[in-house]
Amino acid sequence: MLIADRSPDAAGASVLDPFYRAAGNEVEVFTAAARRGTPVLLKGPTGCGKTRFVETMAHRLGRELITVAGHEDMTSADLVGRFLLKGGETVWVDGPLTRAVRAGAICYLDEIVEARQDTTVVIHPLADHRRELPLDRLGTILHAAPGFQLVISYNPGYQSILKNLKESTRQRFVAITLDFPGADAETEIVAHEAGIDTATARSLVGLGRAIRNLDGSPLGEVSSTRMLILAGSLVAAGLDLRTAVQSAVVEVLSDDDEVVRALGELVDAVLPRR
Amino acid sequence: MLIADRSPDAAGASVLDPFYRAAGNEVEVFTAAARRGTPVLLKGPTGCGKTRFVETMAHRLGRELITVAGHEDMTSADLVGRFLLKGGETVWVDGPLTRAVRAGAICYLDEIVEARQDTTVVIHPLADHRRELPLDRLGTILHAAPGFQLVISYNPGYQSILKNLKESTRQRFVAITLDFPGADAETEIVAHEAGIDTATARSLVGLGRAIRNLDGSPLGEVSSTRMLILAGSLVAAGLDLRTAVQSAVVEVLSDDDEVVRALGELVDAVLPRR
Amino acid sequence: MLIADRSPDAAGASVLDPFYRAAGNEVEVFTAAARRGTPVLLKGPTGCGKTRFVETMAHRLGRELITVAGHEDMTSADLVGRFLLKGGETVWVDGPLTRAVRAGAICYLDEIVEARQDTTVVIHPLADHRRELPLDRLGTILHAAPGFQLVISYNPGYQSILKNLKESTRQRFVAITLDFPGADAETEIVAHEAGIDTATARSLVGLGRAIRNLDGSPLGEVSSTRMLILAGSLVAAGLDLRTAVQSAVVEVLSDDDEVVRALGELVDAVLPRR
Amino acid sequence: MLIADRSPDAAGASVLDPFYRAAGNEVEVFTAAARRGTPVLLKGPTGCGKTRFVETMAHRLGRELITVAGHEDMTSADLVGRFLLKGGETVWVDGPLTRAVRAGAICYLDEIVEARQDTTVVIHPLADHRRELPLDRLGTILHAAPGFQLVISYNPGYQSILKNLKESTRQRFVAITLDFPGADAETEIVAHEAGIDTATARSLVGLGRAIRNLDGSPLGEVSSTRMLILAGSLVAAGLDLRTAVQSAVVEVLSDDDEVVRALGELVDAVLPRR
Amino acid sequence: MLIADRSPDAAGASVLDPFYRAAGNEVEVFTAAARRGTPVLLKGPTGCGKTRFVETMAHRLGRELITVAGHEDMTSADLVGRFLLKGGETVWVDGPLTRAVRAGAICYLDEIVEARQDTTVVIHPLADHRRELPLDRLGTILHAAPGFQLVISYNPGYQSILKNLKESTRQRFVAITLDFPGADAETEIVAHEAGIDTATARSLVGLGRAIRNLDGSPLGEVSSTRMLILAGSLVAAGLDLRTAVQSAVVEVLSDDDEVVRALGELVDAVLPRR
Amino acid sequence: MLIADRSPDAAGASVLDPFYRAAGNEVEVFTAAARRGTPVLLKGPTGCGKTRFVETMAHRLGRELITVAGHEDMTSADLVGRFLLKGGETVWVDGPLTRAVRAGAICYLDEIVEARQDTTVVIHPLADHRRELPLDRLGTILHAAPGFQLVISYNPGYQSILKNLKESTRQRFVAITLDFPGADAETEIVAHEAGIDTATARSLVGLGRAIRNLDGSPLGEVSSTRMLILAGSLVAAGLDLRTAVQSAVVEVLSDDDEVVRALGELVDAVLPRR
Repeated sequence: MLIADRSPDAAGASVLDPFYRAAGNEVEVFTAAARRGTPVLLKGPTGCGKTRFVETMAHRLGRELITVAGHEDMTSADLVGRFLLKGGETVWVDGPLTRAVRAGAICYLDEIVEARQDTTVVIHPLADHRRELPLDRLGTILHAAPGFQLVISYNPGYQSILKNLKESTRQRFVAITLDFPGADAETEIVAHEAGIDTATARSLVGLGRAIRNLDGSPLGEVSSTRMLILAGSLVAAGLDLRTAVQSAVVEVLSDDDEVVRALGELVDAVLPRR
Repeated sequence: MLIADRSPDAAGASVLDPFYRAAGNEVEVFTAAARRGTPVLLKGPTGCGKTRFVETMAHRLGRELITVAGHEDMTSADLVGRFLLKGGETVWVDGPLTRAVRAGAICYLDEIVEARQDTTVVIHPLADHRRELPLDRLGTILHAAPGFQLVISYNPGYQSILKNLKESTRQRFVAITLDFPGADAETEIVAHEAGIDTATARSLVGLGRAIRNLDGSPLGEVSSTRMLILAGSLVAAGLDLRTAVQSAVVEVLSDDDEVVRALGELVDAVLPRR
Repeated sequence: MLIADRSPDAAGASVLDPFYRAAGNEVEVFTAAARRGTPVLLKGPTGCGKTRFVETMAHRLGRELITVAGHEDMTSADLVGRFLLKGGETVWVDGPLTRAVRAGAICYLDEIVEARQDTTVVIHPLADHRRELPLDRLGTILHAAPGFQLVISYNPGYQSILKNLKESTRQRFVAITLDFPGADAETEIVAHEAGIDTATARSLVGLGRAIRNLDGSPLGEVSSTRMLILAGSLVAAGLDLRTAVQSAVVEVLSDDDEVVRALGELVDAVLPRR
Repeated sequence: MLIADRSPDAAGASVLDPFYRAAGNEVEVFTAAARRGTPVLLKGPTGCGKTRFVETMAHRLGRELITVAGHEDMTSADLVGRFLLKGGETVWVDGPLTRAVRAGAICYLDEIVEARQDTTVVIHPLADHRRELPLDRLGTILHAAPGFQLVISYNPGYQSILKNLKESTRQRFVAITLDFPGADAETEIVAHEAGIDTATARSLVGLGRAIRNLDGSPLGEVSSTRMLILAGSLVAAGLDLRTAVQSAVVEVLSDDDEVVRALGELVDAVLPRR
Repeated sequence: MLIADRSPDAAGASVLDPFYRAAGNEVEVFTAAARRGTPVLLKGPTGCGKTRFVETMAHRLGRELITVAGHEDMTSADLVGRFLLKGGETVWVDGPLTRAVRAGAICYLDEIVEARQDTTVVIHPLADHRRELPLDRLGTILHAAPGFQLVISYNPGYQSILKNLKESTRQRFVAITLDFPGADAETEIVAHEAGIDTATARSLVGLGRAIRNLDGSPLGEVSSTRMLILAGSLVAAGLDLRTAVQSAVVEVLSDDDEVVRALGELVDAVLPRR
Repeated sequence: MLIADRSPDAAGASVLDPFYRAAGNEVEVFTAAARRGTPVLLKGPTGCGKTRFVETMAHRLGRELITVAGHEDMTSADLVGRFLLKGGETVWVDGPLTRAVRAGAICYLDEIVEARQDTTVVIHPLADHRRELPLDRLGTILHAAPGFQLVISYNPGYQSILKNLKESTRQRFVAITLDFPGADAETEIVAHEAGIDTATARSLVGLGRAIRNLDGSPLGEVSSTRMLILAGSLVAAGLDLRTAVQSAVVEVLSDDDEVVRALGELVDAVLPRR
């Protein structure tokens, strides 16, 4: 189970804030949902900041955040808990969802749609008016503590057609769509996170936006804020900008020789000469 | 196992009653079936109130309600029970179905068609004149206590062609088809459940009905009563109506940019200006 | 394991007898097979009375009846038995087939073709001249007690093309084909089982036969005797005939709106006005 | 594990002998293979007497016979043995193959091609010059006792294209093709096994051969000697010949109404009037 | 685990030698690879003598030989070892690969491509310059003893397109292609192994080569040296040559009636009249 | 778990250095990434030296290297660790990834894309700003020690279309593309690793490069540096060059007779006559 127990540094809030400046009303919607304990479904592309957004909201609301990454072998026991043998004795160990239910925490299920179906079904009674978690193995039912809130994320362009949230799951959620931040906000984020100057960050953001705007792009994904931060951090570690972009953006976006070459030419055209 | 042990508040019955006013004879049919202990199959779209209907009937009949959500990894042991190791000793723990059989409760198997086949077969002798539950592992057979009744739900438009109730299961049930309530009843429900005024509820219901009546709709599901309640609850938490509808209805109904935009235009046309 | 330990009431035999009056020579064939201990394969549509027939024959022959419902997760251990941990000790628990072999009972494997293949293979040496049940885990072989007889059922129109009895299994059996009883016999059965008057039963049977005779029917199954009994029992519980038929027959036979409507029109034409 | 521990009655050998009179040189080939310990592959249709042939050869050669029926869930542990928990202690229990290897018995693997692949691979070192059985779990290797011989059966027309013996398995065997016995031999067998007079047996055999000779037959299998014996035994139990044939032959051979009717007409034409 | 602990008889080496006379430089290549501890991949058709070749090389090099037959249910634990419960205590039991690594033996993985992928991956660090075997469960790494060498076999014409050695596995090996021996060598081998005179052996080899040279053969495999030896051994056991060939060659090569007949005619044409 | 605990010999660094001379800026990029703890994705064909490169970088950076080979049965427990029963007590045993996280080592996951998806998901929080490893079973979270770095490898031309790194995994990495070294560097490597003279190494490298440059090659892979070293080592063990190339290159590259013959002709044309 993933407990983000990091205590944000003093400047934490203001550091995280810029990230949301460019976006719409996601903070208001999340806050309203949190007030009612309504579960939230976050939609948006890889690396646009969904995890950061949840971390920010948990921080602002003063709630503990428990994060779980979904995968296709995940079962409900991975969420709820299981008996383990310890010294010949079976001991129950809470899973991350159960811990969140008891603690009144925000439970963030990242890419939960990848998980096996019993995983999504187990959240049904938690995600409607019942706010209950059945613990079959213990023969009991937990009522969620005040403050408990479910958040799940989902990348619409990325999920296979065979892996979709069941409608009966989905309709229990309020949906918020996130996208990449605006140019100024993204520049501020990249500069801060990578530890580089604003001019370099602005170059990287310009490149990132150029790639996102490619017509008929053969790329499965576009250049994310995360990639631009990685490129910036390589610059901060001493690499020249062109090499950093090649490693953190171009080679990551494609394995196809021709696409790599075309992206390289785009980079050469967009990045400033030095 | 899910035991709805909530004690309904004094006004409970009258609160729940409106929900059924608009529909047909489902209360009479359910009552007749309950008198004979005949199992009931509920058909209807996601979020139309199947769970609420069963809760209401259990309340009116004065029976305990035990609910289980089906999923594709569910096996008969999840229903019937299993041996667990406790302190080196194996202890039998009743599953939810077995508890209902012993207690004479209503056992509501939600979307049971998703479960593995042994799950449906185990209910065969409970669902005909025998009213027996074999407990293989215990080497015994339970006779259902008076009052025990099976209820299963099923969404005809939603099930895949590969997942259908076996005919030999289905023919043991009496079927009741539910649909969304009429406009007045739905308005009353949305206002009550979300805690909003009747005018706002009426706007939401008008929008919901407009979406349900779309010709050649590309949506897999339509706007359910549940979604309208969620939208209303966001309004009650302080969001403006348009934003609440965007998050609770539009973004939930589709991930497709064009469909989202078209739905948005419909919302703008239907919702009252403020 | 399912042991039909019900002691039939005094009128039991005569009550059950009508059921067979309309049919062919199935009683004679079953009796001859029982005399030789030859296994029997029952073929016939869902709800035509296969289970009742076996119950009757067991009653007439004075044999215990042990029934098992097949499903696609059933393994040979579910039939034969397994070791269970009890208090740190492993204890062997007979499965239903093993109990029948020891007791000289009739073992009725309902829809066994659904089960996993090892389930059918385990009955091979029981189903030929050897009449032996190997208990691998115990390292021993049981010889079937006198009176032991295997009966399996099978719905030819219903089985998928991928799920058929292996020829090497099938050829060990004598086959009996059952069908719905004649109109008079069925009327008598429906009246008795549902507890309604003969006139109402006759109306239901007339409707049932009309549905069975539909040309080019889009239905996967037809109206069974079981359905007619269920409809009758709803009438006995206070519903009017038309509503009872809608719930127990029409809505059960199809989920398709148009088919449901057409069936409703047929019902209106066939059922007597009141 | 299946140990044919029946002690043949005095007349056993002569009773079984007729069965082989009509066939080719299978006794000589089997005897030569047995002399060298060479494994034998029996090919032939369902119910032609493969099992009986192996029983006869084991009897003549004075060897113990251990029979195992293959199925698609069978693993090598089912053949070789496994550890079982008994009273907190793990105890090794030999599987049937291991018992045969130790005892110098004939091990007859019936339809082994159905089993999982590790099952066939485990017999490789037993089926060539090594005559060894590795017992991985015990960390040891058994050398087969003198007299040990592998026999496997196989129905070429019946196996699916996906389930074939691996060539590397198959080439370790000497193959014997069996077919139905000649008319006189089959008559003698049917009369003896079913306990009926020769004239009736001859009628049954005549019918069986007529069905086998149908041009362009839609049947998956043909009428086997086993079926004719079953029909005869129903006659011995008191059924008339026509009814016995209907149950033991016609209804077993097909579920298709038209095919059943056509077969019935063939039966009427071939069987003598009484 | 398979340990070829047979002590070759005095004449062993000379007996085995003829087998290799006809072939190319496989002895030199294997010897060079053994000198460097380089793993060897043996390619060749079923029954051409791959196992015998490895036995010979192990004998000549004075190394222990440990053989494992691959199958599709084989996992890395089958090779490496596992913990077993013994008297409440878990005891580690080395698998055959681990035993070979400790003993500096030749480990021959027969048809390893059939095994599950973790089985092939576990040999990667053993098959390059590292010569290490990680024992995850023991938390340790074994360095292979001097003399340890991996040999795997592979039948190129026989493997399905879905089951190929991973390139990253394959490129760690030196490949040797074996084929059937020349006519004189094969005659000598068949005569010696089957215990028949040279003239009969020559007839069998002539037949085998005729079958191998069939144009457009419908056979999946051709007549192998192993089959010819089996045919010869039936002759040594008293069968006439034509019958022995029918059982050990013709009936083994095909189940198709027409192919069997055509092969029979070829046999009649090629075998000498007696 | 694979711990490369070999202490490099005195000349180690200089020996390994030549390998990288011909390539691009991979050392600089890796060093920058290591400085920031950024995970690295190595792309390149089989046998081009990815493993050696990581070994070199670990050596230069003075970090421990822990290597794990991915395979399709690998689960997250294989990386993270599991409870094992020891003497009735369950004891936690760290997996290789956990050991690397605790030790601040480089963890090299070779062909991790082959592993099951939970394996890749478990590295997500390690591969972004969190640098955390959740140990679900222990109910704790490890923060990676300084120096910990993830490296994964990937062969773009080799992966099936169904097995790709998830985008959400991939975008956490900086990518470095490796290729075969230049002719001089490769010659030096082959001579040194195989222990042969420079002239022979140069012949081998010339041949390898000729094969890599084949137009429209039917080969799945090309001749790798690893293959050339193997060929050279056979020469060092006494084989003539042509035979060594046949075994280590030609027969390894293809099983197709025609391709093998064509490659042989190419070899005859390229290799020097002796």
